[in-house]
Parts: sequence; structure tokens; C-alpha cells
Amino acid sequence: MVNIGIVGIGLVGAELVAQLKATSNKHLKVVAMTTSKKMVLSDTSYAPLTYANAQDLDAFAAYLAKSPEHAVIVDCTASDAVAKLYPSWLQSGVSVVTPNKKGFSGDLSLYRAIQASAANLGKGGKTPLAFHESTVGAGLPVLSTLADLVKTGDKVISIEGIFSGTLSYLFNNFSSLSSTTAARPFSEIVKVAKELGYTEPDPRDDLNGMDVARKVTICGRLAGLDLDLSTLEIQNIVPEPLQKVATAEEFMAQLPNFDGHFQKLNEEAKKENQVLRCVGLVDMKGGKSGVKLIKYPASHPFASLQGSDNIIKFTTEYFPNGLIIQGAGAGAAVTAYGIFSDLLKIQERVEGY
Amino acid sequence: MVNIGIVGIGLVGAELVAQLKATSNKHLKVVAMTTSKKMVLSDTSYAPLTYANAQDLDAFAAYLAKSPEHAVIVDCTASDAVAKLYPSWLQSGVSVVTPNKKGFSGDLSLYRAIQASAANLGKGGKTPLAFHESTVGAGLPVLSTLADLVKTGDKVISIEGIFSGTLSYLFNNFSSLSSTTAARPFSEIVKVAKELGYTEPDPRDDLNGMDVARKVTICGRLAGLDLDLSTLEIQNIVPEPLQKVATAEEFMAQLPNFDGHFQKLNEEAKKENQVLRCVGLVDMKGGKSGVKLIKYPASHPFASLQGSDNIIKFTTEYFPNGLIIQGAGAGAAVTAYGIFSDLLKIQERVEGY
Ligand SMILES: NC(=O)c1ccc[n+]([C@@H]2O[C@H](COP(=O)([O-])OP(=O)(O)OC[C@H]3O[C@@H](n4cnc5c(N)ncnc54)[C@H](OP(=O)(O)O)[C@@H]3O)[C@@H](O)[C@H]2O)c1
Ligand SMILES: NC(=O)c1ccc[n+]([C@@H]2O[C@H](COP(=O)([O-])OP(=O)(O)OC[C@H]3O[C@@H](n4cnc5c(N)ncnc54)[C@H](OP(=O)(O)O)[C@@H]3O)[C@@H](O)[C@H]2O)c1
Repeated sequence: MVNIGIVGIGLVGAELVAQLKATSNKHLKVVAMTTSKKMVLSDTSYAPLTYANAQDLDAFAAYLAKSPEHAVIVDCTASDAVAKLYPSWLQSGVSVVTPNKKGFSGDLSLYRAIQASAANLGKGGKTPLAFHESTVGAGLPVLSTLADLVKTGDKVISIEGIFSGTLSYLFNNFSSLSSTTAARPFSEIVKVAKELGYTEPDPRDDLNGMDVARKVTICGRLAGLDLDLSTLEIQNIVPEPLQKVATAEEFMAQLPNFDGHFQKLNEEAKKENQVLRCVGLVDMKGGKSGVKLIKYPASHPFASLQGSDNIIKFTTEYFPNGLIIQGAGAGAAVTAYGIFSDLLKIQERVEGY
Repeated sequence: MVNIGIVGIGLVGAELVAQLKATSNKHLKVVAMTTSKKMVLSDTSYAPLTYANAQDLDAFAAYLAKSPEHAVIVDCTASDAVAKLYPSWLQSGVSVVTPNKKGFSGDLSLYRAIQASAANLGKGGKTPLAFHESTVGAGLPVLSTLADLVKTGDKVISIEGIFSGTLSYLFNNFSSLSSTTAARPFSEIVKVAKELGYTEPDPRDDLNGMDVARKVTICGRLAGLDLDLSTLEIQNIVPEPLQKVATAEEFMAQLPNFDGHFQKLNEEAKKENQVLRCVGLVDMKGGKSGVKLIKYPASHPFASLQGSDNIIKFTTEYFPNGLIIQGAGAGAAVTAYGIFSDLLKIQERVEGY
């Protein structure tokens, strides 16, 4: 049995609770939950039932650390403040599972503290673990595969991917060779995506490349590079004059003025039988890691991508032609699935069956 | 520390030894090796150094079962006789890792015995494990991903894949929409593949679909179906009259007579802007699991496959548009890599770090 505490019961947290309930896995038990306003600590098997109107993350963590069985805190927030607590949780012997990118893509010092804290032996000679499969490609087996490549001594050469479901959708629709009709204006595709809820409330939060940069940082660090958001080359696709515009509404209103700019890029690509894709790149030797708008030939797997799929390609010594993973990289179901897989890996490691 | 015994030091077994040596992982120690002719049991830490000119698998297994640390036997043969021993090895508390398809795609009774034996608690309350990632897609994370989907309660709908590197190569070269030149005759592509060592000595052993059927069986069983080679629909691509021909040489000599047959299929596909691919299918509900030559439209990821890559697509409730894994699915390096990954998973589970 592993005892689980969940911080953040939003889209992903609630879906995780639903998936755990649906499978009624006897080895995983949710004993505590908290949002930013309310907290419930509820396992009567080792502590009295406690409800709190106010959230108190210290009490929450202490409660989990006291668990007679191995405990895991699942952080389903996007909070920097919560991520900063991982080292102390791990030091108290509690494992961490999270889809929250902040702890693994923020300050290198926090990242190092997480790694160091996870290496200490915990209860019963077990090391607590910090698993974060869902921070990159949601439930797609991206980080677990990368970890295997590293641990077996394969040499990673590069990691290249369409890491953002939003940017995947925008460019798959804007720049395609198989489309028989002329390309729609870029602004129109952004507008539709925004209406469908595929973008952040301000689409510039997708187009500025920061989310992709965080995923590049996470992959790069796992592969052994000391990447940092502040030193990555991040191409902001938002046209310069629109970067400073105050509101999302103004941005959307002015974006059509820049359709010509995007159309020109697209036509240049098309002339060479190529398409535009916004990719994240981890370059293990050349130091060219970053986020870029790149052209790909029709025969490349990135060129025929559809919908809002993510696609990630590892090029390594064992896989010189690439190991590719493709599929939905966002959405509550697949994100919770990635968390659930991580929880099972911890449970199996702790219990041995 | 986990003690390892390797049965079969051929292409894959030797590469595994090399990879283990290159990484000098302190948690994995090879203590015994055997081919069909020679055996060496060499860990002086718990038993005297023993060389044997003759192979004796009983003595080999007993030696591993006696290990004070958790032990794993890695079967790197293609032998049915060796696979039949897995249940007894597991019952003695020894884990099994293998790229050998026989135990997992043969008699359902053997498969069930392996599963049942792996569920018994072994040394220190640990269950011995039977991992076989490299039996499907070599080191590609196919079976580990499928296992995660099943364990988290996702519902698998279908598994569709190009599971054979050889058939991938043949049809990627024979049937492609992007090729500007006319397709070469099928027999010519088979001839080149045979010369390059991409096919079995008798290419009919690739074309008859049996290797793919074994992989379909393995995936289907892991997903919960009682598939059996004897009841699968397996399309033999070898033209009927050539199935009975005595030797590989005669087969190769007569194959050009059937180029028209393959060309006709290819042209029919091309007319619909489709390509031919030989795929394995696990159909969870419809009962249509098997091996088939199928047409795919240009936009399908199977259509733009290159080289001899494998590609496997899981369609599930969480991934209705598919989770796809693609890459090299054969070769000593990637096969040994898959075995190495399995060994690390066992070591981590047994030791907890
Ligand atoms: N949704 C996806 O497709 C997806 C994919 C991959 C990764 N992720 C990541 O998964 C995480 C969760 O995403 P989501 O879509 O579920 O977000 P969400 O719906 O906004 O939910 C966030 C939850 O976190 C809680 N929270 C925020 N700050 C907190 C704090 N300091 N202490 C306790 N609870 C706090 C919120 O509680 P209140 O309501 O009380 O503020 C809310 O319940 C994010 O890191 C996101 O980047 C999501
Ligand atoms: N090569 C690949 O790309 C690949 C990919 C996926 C899976 N696999 C699987 O990996 C396995 C090994 O392939 P391989 O290419 O390494 O084959 P291989 O080069 O033919 O080696 C087979 C080895 O097994 C030994 N052997 C056979 N029967 C034995 C027995 N009864 N007891 C002990 N040793 C025995 C042979 O020893 P002797 O020489 O003494 O007979 C030889 O050392 C096969 O199951 C294959 O299907 C291979």
C-alpha cells in the first residue's frame, strides 16, 4: 500500500481521483487532498479525520511524512511556491509525482536540490522518488524512455520535438502540403484555436515559446545538460510589435495585420516542398538547444502530424535514425494517466510486486 | 546487486555483455553464461568457480537460484526448449528477461504457467518478474507502454503495427507515393534485402507472416486477449505456388514470375493515393486480430515510414487518436538495450534504488 496526498484538485487532479477510483487499485490510497483554500486529511488508519477550512501545506506534508506506509505527494498545481517544497518533502522520505513543470524547469539550484533529496535513503532503505512524466508530452512515455536511454549508457545526440499541443494544432493547420485548398490566414487559425479553448487565454503565452522552452529544459537536464531558461535560444513567434500590446483582445485584433508575414514564411517553405513547424530542440553537443520555427520536408514524420498531437524524436547512438513517440500531449485524461503510471512505478518499487 | 545468468551468447547475448561492461553498472553482475555447448559459472562470492565443457541448464538454473542476491536469467536464444523452463526458474525465485518470443507466443498453457509462476512471492517478499520488452519492436518501449495502459485502467481498443523490420523495408521501398521513379519489381527488392542480410536465410520466413503473428500474439495477450497462433488470421504474402517450393534458392529464382501480382496490388493502391503495408493487428473487440497486407492513405503515419523502422499504434480510450511508437525494431544494439532496460527495472524494484 502507498498513501497518496494530492495538492490541487483542478482539471488534472480531479481526473486523477476519478481514474484511481475507477480502477480501485488496492495498492494506492488517497489519504489527503488540498486546494489553495481547503484541505482534508482523511485516513483514519493512522491519524484522526481532520478537515481544515484553510490550507496548510506544512501540516499536509507532515501528515504524509507520518504515514506508516510509503507516501507520495502529487502536485497537480502550476505553482512555483509548491514546487519549492519538493526538497523538504523528499527529505522527509515522501516521494513526489507531478505534472507541474516549475520545479524541473526553473532555477537549476532547485532542480539540483530535488535530485539530491531524492537520492537519500528513506523508509526501509527505499529512496523517495521524484517522477514527472506528465511534465513533457503529458502521458506519452517520453521521460521514462529518455531515462532508460541514459541509464543503459546509450549516448543521446539530440531530442527534437513538437512539445506543444497548441503550436502543433496551429502549424499543422496553417502549413500543410497535402491541403488542396489555399492556407487560411494565420490569425484566423489562432482565432479558431482560441475559441475551441486550445490556447491559453492570451495566445501569446503559447506563441512566445516559453512552455516549449520549459519542456526542452526538462528533457535536456534529464539527458545531462545544465540547461536554463535564461540562456536558451527561444524564438518568440509573436511579431515584435505585438509583444508589448497590453491585452489579449488587442493582440487578437491586431494579429491579422501580420498575416502577410506568416504567409511569406509559409510560401517560402512550400516552394521547397517543406512545411513550418515550431519545435523544441535539445542539442547535446552543439549547444544549439532552444525553440525554433523550422522547415521540414514532406517525408519527415513531423510534416505529416495531425490535430494537436505532440511528437518527440530521440536521436542516439543505438537509435541513429531516431526513436519517435507521438500522440496526445495535453488533456486531463492523458495527463492523469501519466501521473497514475508514475504512481504505479513507485508502488511497484516500494513493495516489489 | 542483482546476479545475472545469460543463456545464449550469440549476436544479442554478446552485445548485452558488451553494454553491461561499458556502463559498469554496480548493481548488475553477470555471474554465469552458457551457450548450447559450453558453460561457465563464475561468481566466487557464493560458489566456487566452475567451468563445464558441456552445457547443463539444470545446474545453471540451480546455481542462479542459490544466489544470495536476487537473480535473473536472461534467455538470449530462440529456443522453445529453453522457454519451457521459465516456470521452474520463476518458481525458484529467479526472474526472467528475454528477447525470445517462444515462451510468450507459443502454447497458451506455457504462457499462463509463466504468468502464474511470476506472481508467487520470492526472496524477501519480492515476486520474481518475467520481462520481455525486446520480444516486440526490440528496445522500443512497446510492451512497457502497453503494460502501463492496461494497469491504469485505460481501455485498449486496437494495436496496429508494422512489427517486422524486414517487411517494413520491403514495402517502404516497393510501395511509396513520394518516389519519383517507377517502383522496382518486388522480387528485386527482396533480392537486395536478402543480400544485405535484412531477411531470414529463406525470405519466406519473413513473408509468411509468422514472426509478425508471434508479436501480435504477445501484444494481444498482454492486453488481455487469449490469442493463439493457431487461430489468428495470418496472411501469407508468399504466392501460393511458391509456398511449397523446396529451397530458398528455388523460391528466389521463381519469385520474378510473380512480380505482376505484386505490381497489380501496388497500382490499385496507388490509384487511390494509398500505399501497401504489411501490418499486425490486435483487435480487442471485433476478433479480427491477425496479419494482413493493407492499404494506407498518404497522410497515415505508416505511409511515410522509411528504412526498416517498426511503428506501433495503440488506440485506446485515453488516446482515441493513437499513441505511436516508431524506430529501429531489430539489430543487436537495440535488442540488448531493451534487455538492459528490463534488467534495470528489476534491479530497481528489488533494491528500491
Ligand atoms: N491540463 C493539461 O492538459 C495539462 C497537461 C500537462 C500538464 N499539466 C499541468 O498540470 C497541472 C495542473 O493543471 P490543471 O489543468 O489541472 O490546472 P487547474 O485546473 O488550474 O487546477 C489547479 C489546481 O491547483 C490548485 N492550487 C493552485 N495553487 C495552489 C496552492 N498553492 N496550494 C494548493 N492548491 C493550489 C487550484 O486550487 P484553487 O482552485 O483553490 O486555486 C486548483 O485546484 C499544471 O501544472 C499544468 O501545467 C496540465
Ligand atoms: N537479432 C535481433 O535483431 C533480434 C531482435 C529481437 C529479438 N531477437 C531475439 O533474440 C534472440 C537471440 O537472437 P540472436 O540474433 O542473438 O541469435 P544467435 O546469434 O543465433 O544466438 C543464439 C545463441 O543461443 C545459443 N543457444 C541456442 N540454443 C541454446 C540452448 N538450448 N542452450 C543454450 N544456448 C543456446 C546459441 O549457442 P550455440 O552457438 O552454442 O548454438 C547462440 O549463442 C532470439 O530469440 C531472437 O529472436 C533478436
